[in-house]
Amino acid sequence: MSANSFGTLFRVTTWGESHGPALGAVVDGVPPRLALDEAFIQGFLDKRKPGTSRFVTQRRESDTVEILSGVFEGQTTGTSLSLMIRNEDQRSKDYSEIAAKFRPGHADYTYWAKYGIRDYRGGGRSSARETAARVAAGAVARRVLGDGVTIRGAVVQIGPHKIDRAKWDWSACGENPFWCPDRDMAAKWEEFLDATRKAGSSAGAVIEVVADGVPAGWGAPIYGKLDSDLAAAMMGINAVKGVEIGDGFAAAELSGEANADEMRAGNAGPTFLSNHAGGILGGISTGQPVVVRFAVKPTSSILSPRRTIDIDGNETEIVTKGRHDPCVGIRAVPVGEAMMACVLADHKLRHRAQCG
Amino acid sequence: MSANSFGTLFRVTTWGESHGPALGAVVDGVPPRLALDEAFIQGFLDKRKPGTSRFVTQRRESDTVEILSGVFEGQTTGTSLSLMIRNEDQRSKDYSEIAAKFRPGHADYTYWAKYGIRDYRGGGRSSARETAARVAAGAVARRVLGDGVTIRGAVVQIGPHKIDRAKWDWSACGENPFWCPDRDMAAKWEEFLDATRKAGSSAGAVIEVVADGVPAGWGAPIYGKLDSDLAAAMMGINAVKGVEIGDGFAAAELSGEANADEMRAGNAGPTFLSNHAGGILGGISTGQPVVVRFAVKPTSSILSPRRTIDIDGNETEIVTKGRHDPCVGIRAVPVGEAMMACVLADHKLRHRAQCG
Amino acid sequence: MSANSFGTLFRVTTWGESHGPALGAVVDGVPPRLALDEAFIQGFLDKRKPGTSRFVTQRRESDTVEILSGVFEGQTTGTSLSLMIRNEDQRSKDYSEIAAKFRPGHADYTYWAKYGIRDYRGGGRSSARETAARVAAGAVARRVLGDGVTIRGAVVQIGPHKIDRAKWDWSACGENPFWCPDRDMAAKWEEFLDATRKAGSSAGAVIEVVADGVPAGWGAPIYGKLDSDLAAAMMGINAVKGVEIGDGFAAAELSGEANADEMRAGNAGPTFLSNHAGGILGGISTGQPVVVRFAVKPTSSILSPRRTIDIDGNETEIVTKGRHDPCVGIRAVPVGEAMMACVLADHKLRHRAQCG
Amino acid sequence: MSANSFGTLFRVTTWGESHGPALGAVVDGVPPRLALDEAFIQGFLDKRKPGTSRFVTQRRESDTVEILSGVFEGQTTGTSLSLMIRNEDQRSKDYSEIAAKFRPGHADYTYWAKYGIRDYRGGGRSSARETAARVAAGAVARRVLGDGVTIRGAVVQIGPHKIDRAKWDWSACGENPFWCPDRDMAAKWEEFLDATRKAGSSAGAVIEVVADGVPAGWGAPIYGKLDSDLAAAMMGINAVKGVEIGDGFAAAELSGEANADEMRAGNAGPTFLSNHAGGILGGISTGQPVVVRFAVKPTSSILSPRRTIDIDGNETEIVTKGRHDPCVGIRAVPVGEAMMACVLADHKLRHRAQCG
Repeated sequence: MSANSFGTLFRVTTWGESHGPALGAVVDGVPPRLALDEAFIQGFLDKRKPGTSRFVTQRRESDTVEILSGVFEGQTTGTSLSLMIRNEDQRSKDYSEIAAKFRPGHADYTYWAKYGIRDYRGGGRSSARETAARVAAGAVARRVLGDGVTIRGAVVQIGPHKIDRAKWDWSACGENPFWCPDRDMAAKWEEFLDATRKAGSSAGAVIEVVADGVPAGWGAPIYGKLDSDLAAAMMGINAVKGVEIGDGFAAAELSGEANADEMRAGNAGPTFLSNHAGGILGGISTGQPVVVRFAVKPTSSILSPRRTIDIDGNETEIVTKGRHDPCVGIRAVPVGEAMMACVLADHKLRHRAQCG
Repeated sequence: MSANSFGTLFRVTTWGESHGPALGAVVDGVPPRLALDEAFIQGFLDKRKPGTSRFVTQRRESDTVEILSGVFEGQTTGTSLSLMIRNEDQRSKDYSEIAAKFRPGHADYTYWAKYGIRDYRGGGRSSARETAARVAAGAVARRVLGDGVTIRGAVVQIGPHKIDRAKWDWSACGENPFWCPDRDMAAKWEEFLDATRKAGSSAGAVIEVVADGVPAGWGAPIYGKLDSDLAAAMMGINAVKGVEIGDGFAAAELSGEANADEMRAGNAGPTFLSNHAGGILGGISTGQPVVVRFAVKPTSSILSPRRTIDIDGNETEIVTKGRHDPCVGIRAVPVGEAMMACVLADHKLRHRAQCG
Repeated sequence: MSANSFGTLFRVTTWGESHGPALGAVVDGVPPRLALDEAFIQGFLDKRKPGTSRFVTQRRESDTVEILSGVFEGQTTGTSLSLMIRNEDQRSKDYSEIAAKFRPGHADYTYWAKYGIRDYRGGGRSSARETAARVAAGAVARRVLGDGVTIRGAVVQIGPHKIDRAKWDWSACGENPFWCPDRDMAAKWEEFLDATRKAGSSAGAVIEVVADGVPAGWGAPIYGKLDSDLAAAMMGINAVKGVEIGDGFAAAELSGEANADEMRAGNAGPTFLSNHAGGILGGISTGQPVVVRFAVKPTSSILSPRRTIDIDGNETEIVTKGRHDPCVGIRAVPVGEAMMACVLADHKLRHRAQCG
Repeated sequence: MSANSFGTLFRVTTWGESHGPALGAVVDGVPPRLALDEAFIQGFLDKRKPGTSRFVTQRRESDTVEILSGVFEGQTTGTSLSLMIRNEDQRSKDYSEIAAKFRPGHADYTYWAKYGIRDYRGGGRSSARETAARVAAGAVARRVLGDGVTIRGAVVQIGPHKIDRAKWDWSACGENPFWCPDRDMAAKWEEFLDATRKAGSSAGAVIEVVADGVPAGWGAPIYGKLDSDLAAAMMGINAVKGVEIGDGFAAAELSGEANADEMRAGNAGPTFLSNHAGGILGGISTGQPVVVRFAVKPTSSILSPRRTIDIDGNETEIVTKGRHDPCVGIRAVPVGEAMMACVLADHKLRHRAQCG
């Protein structure tokens, strides 16, 4: 019942607080003899690290990963991998006010209600800083998946502004600070988020993650469904409030005729004429791209004072200073990709276990 | 890694095919000395059973539950509960065509791709008939939760037609065959679904499940989040393609100021001025109502011929005859309630384990 | 945390009380397309069933198994198997006295202390009747293992009388009612147990289970050790108080030189010059026979009055009438074989998952 | 299916190789607001650390523990604890020969057979150095158990020399380098092990661990038995080949009359007139002391050349140089205590979850 672990065969356990000495992940169940070194993992961490543009937090962290176990002479050994990232920029004074007050929209009150104690420095364990450990684990998962599976994420909506899907170009994602696949919309978002940032406000976002190359047959029926595990994985990312597979909520408006993805004969398995299902039927992959979307709420770390109570139950107000993300959804892209990688790696191994 | 089990401490394992002799659930981890008998469970099964209106399947099943173990003299004993429901109406001839062809939008192809064998009679294990076992288990979960927690579900959208939330009246739900809380919309749905049914088509739906009385502090951080487990539970229901907590995808359009649920002093814990969060922050309950919504796609069992392939890879067409639900979302209401009950019961026990 | 489940990938969940309507097992994680029918399972149940000789309980049970799910046209489908055995002989009046008194050496008091309720009829859930479900599951496990792995059990000690290992002949096991591989000792045991039975007393036993054909590499390091899982599996059988792998406790008396199993070059992997290790090193199989022994205490169901207390805490005495096994260790042989099969099947799948 | 984790609610995940930079444990499920600091954990590590007498390995390790997460202002927070111990003395040259040859009686060959790669430096992950992480986790478990439960271990046999149980005096254990409760036997062991050490040989041992103060009701039926979990925990310690509860294998020689622990009325629950059961009936604690014994084989790291093969399959010989324990059983005492603590802490939480 480990609240800090996920996955069944490819299993990740994370630890660490925002302002503790370090954070990390133990990754278990990794097949042996996979090439792995710190540089490979670092590439993914660099996509998530703070300070890469004015639209993300200015906290200074190099997010340098160390492999402490499980790799020998450049290869995984089959034993547990320990990955550690030291915290470097821990200006605790930024957060002193929140020791006594609960920030609305944060986990301050609920941790207090549950545990009767909380590490208030930067949100402690509830800080999105924990997602660095997920990204590191996700890099290992990509090695398990191998080169046949490609996982890419994009931001498809910031605030009320949605991309034009007809303009989708994956190569655009790397050219703007938003992972936006629609070049025109990227320009609009820049304007919108500059205004948001200057107002000390924050904006929500929707992220889409697509996995190409997943063969038919991964996943499992009933409670081991691939979409069920993806839903849990994405909903568990900080600030996520909704998850969709394929057409998602839009499917509720379709007729049965429109929604069914028809099949034609293909070279290797069927060719589907559409992908409303997002690559999953009955909890099992179809061989089409696996498509997941998730909604990220606007962070509650804003400069406008909000009404709240303190730990003694008195009414008060709070303004969250400090270095925050005007749109946390942006840095959620590599995190969503990592969770997709971890879920798929787990199901690859689970499928191999049962079906050889 | 049991694909047919869910939950950690309150743990449900189900079995059974659509056209086998029976289906059932083993429920483990149940606290001792809870009052339980078959009549209590039957009440919930009767809400889900087929044939209650012309808008659901006409298959004839009484869905009578038997308790085979775990109850002694009207009380749970703390050992594993075995609940069994015999299948009565198994007209296998209705389904003979699907032995050789894959129905688009169903799990036929993916089970075949994964296992190389499938019980094609009525969908076998992939049939939504399995959800009867969930509903039975959910009844047990309600006993674990006790009377302080109330769980209610409603259909809030069928096809493109959404209810007017201002007209929400829980008492209306029992008065129409749609679990619709908006009396005006219920009339409109009747018209819409009659047309759908006569056209041999099908419609999607959105269901909302609300739990009142959940105390602050249930759930857990990181990968044991209450919302993460709810997302998995709801996404794992047949035909579900999206899950939201609280404002869900709409939260992406809000500003941080609008989204943060402000707090004032209350008699027992804080009073929140809004519930955008759907009763969960940082994966832990706030004490507000827990609000989940999920989207159900239109079933692919329709009378219009759809293009597909057969098990030898040849191109063909298929028409799904038989007795199907024009809108499977309707019968998903008691299933969604049951999953909510199971997740909450599990987290109640998990919280008690760690925090006493 | 299911107390009624074991295994990770090959996962068994059991249910049922001694005097309830039935008992059963749900077996999950079974690979698809394995030949399986009730006759195959029944063969193993018949080895464990009561009434086969005067040395075991005279309760009349045919222990007929029904497969309720998971098999289609004679093959496993990859979904959960439900196996059910109805109880036939439930003379509850035999057990009426134990409703109010705790039998020493039984689980009566501890179930009461834990749950505050107990099904006292025949021991309820704590009855060794539950092991029928294990034997049924073990039959499925043998299908997972295939013909390359042979699992055989024998009784090597009853009361103080140990077999002469030099006389070990597997073919003798089927010729006497004790699964005794030493023909001379079988005669002695007959005499000893007749005396025990007539005295209304009971005797303990030691069982040895050997698996031939296990390839090198099954198992896992640290907490997933093959011997660790075997120890849990055997210790969890009713009345077992000790478990050994290979030389077991005798290894403590050896020198390092004597204990190390030396290796020579073989045709496929090494040839070992001895098997003190019982086929397992570092938690992983060596390719030699896997050898486990476990000690079964004498049942406390005896005719001599024993001092005890009643459920109100008053001092009293109890005599356990009814139809009991003078030596429960005899019927533990097929149970131990079944647990060996289940553990090995699980590790076969786990190995395939991680190492392909 | 994490091979590097154990426990259900109190859950420990370990990592690290003998000659890597560090090793550690992540401990999850810890209740909040328990006092914990490094000094408390260090006290237990100091009992296990190398170099404390001439009868254990002379490797120099301070085994200094660092708490990296999960503790705030001297109290546990309810989130995952990360405990790290750096390796200091890593003279890799001592172990160079074993890169190419398999040491008989070690895990060298089986890791190779399983993974096709192994970290041969000091045994890598298979080294008993991993048990330092268990001891650290065990210290946390003791905090979960609180002062009411006392866990103590002793060596009761070295080689063929068993203690006289009539002379048992717990206070003697701390006065000799063997954790021997029989002062006379300690003198004999000193002589015996000096001879063993000088001969470059090694000796086995039997360890007994006793937990006082465990209330009746911990544990669970069937597959969640307290003795089953203890058996797994102890059998999983390096070099252990047998586990007993209470009378263990000796119970097989008793009659039912002799073995049943009779009960008389006591002040709080029954008073038992004997403890053949070792404090556990039906998998659930009786309130008597919980008694476990385990056999440790003699280490195969000896100076006499043993026949073996190399990684290319050629026949050769090997002598294991380096700094080894002449009797690894001695340092297994704090490890056995730690495993007892972890299992009991887990069951304390599991019992609270189900039974309040």
